[in-house]
Amino acid sequence: MSVSLPPDVNQAMCPSRGVLEHVTSRWGVLILAALLDRTPLRFSELRRTVEGVSEKMLAQTLQTLERDGFVHREARPVIPPHVEYSLTPLGREAAEQVWGLARWTERHMEQVLGARERYDEARG
Amino acid sequence: MSVSLPPDVNQAMCPSRGVLEHVTSRWGVLILAALLDRTPLRFSELRRTVEGVSEKMLAQTLQTLERDGFVHREARPVIPPHVEYSLTPLGREAAEQVWGLARWTERHMEQVLGARERYDEARG
Repeated sequence: MSVSLPPDVNQAMCPSRGVLEHVTSRWGVLILAALLDRTPLRFSELRRTVEGVSEKMLAQTLQTLERDGFVHREARPVIPPHVEYSLTPLGREAAEQVWGLARWTERHMEQVLGARERYDEARG
Repeated sequence: MSVSLPPDVNQAMCPSRGVLEHVTSRWGVLILAALLDRTPLRFSELRRTVEGVSEKMLAQTLQTLERDGFVHREARPVIPPHVEYSLTPLGREAAEQVWGLARWTERHMEQVLGARERYDEARG
């Protein structure tokens, strides 16, 4: 008998936890948000936008996001040939949420830095 | 001269990138979302809710989130003494967003699993 439980990210073995980890991964967040800002983007454009990502990590993260159905990869048969990345409709939904989180974080940096100062001072 | 640039998570050296990484870290997401569902929570309750987290990683993640001003830690002088964790107003805002992302992921698992099947089939 196969019992299908509803997805629950709090369950260690639930595949939804892995998907959440892809979407919220260090580079996943930034790549999805970048593709929401401007789409399509070439590999080299993504690499310039998301500062500090290595070629290897960018390729790997894009492949994971493509396999999950969030990113569409298109080889453009032009001269010189290049590959473009864009969001699928599903990926756009995910990207809107991480984009919101990225912008929220930027807007609240002062508050976070203030909290850190108070925390560190209280502990000498 | 000190030039203060607006926070930008795409800049490798911007502190906002680190904060975004705390909020979206593997355990950070699940801890924030759990505290939005039910607050306050004791350490042991959090550990049971977020299945698979080690004591060490839970303590470390809570400390990071406390220092950033997202989580409030309160030692309760009762018998037996225990520590409770809750969200600060700032943490609640962050938690609402990652909670939304967690629930979105759970709701879209079928689509993700379908995309993976198509991806794997296309590559034999």
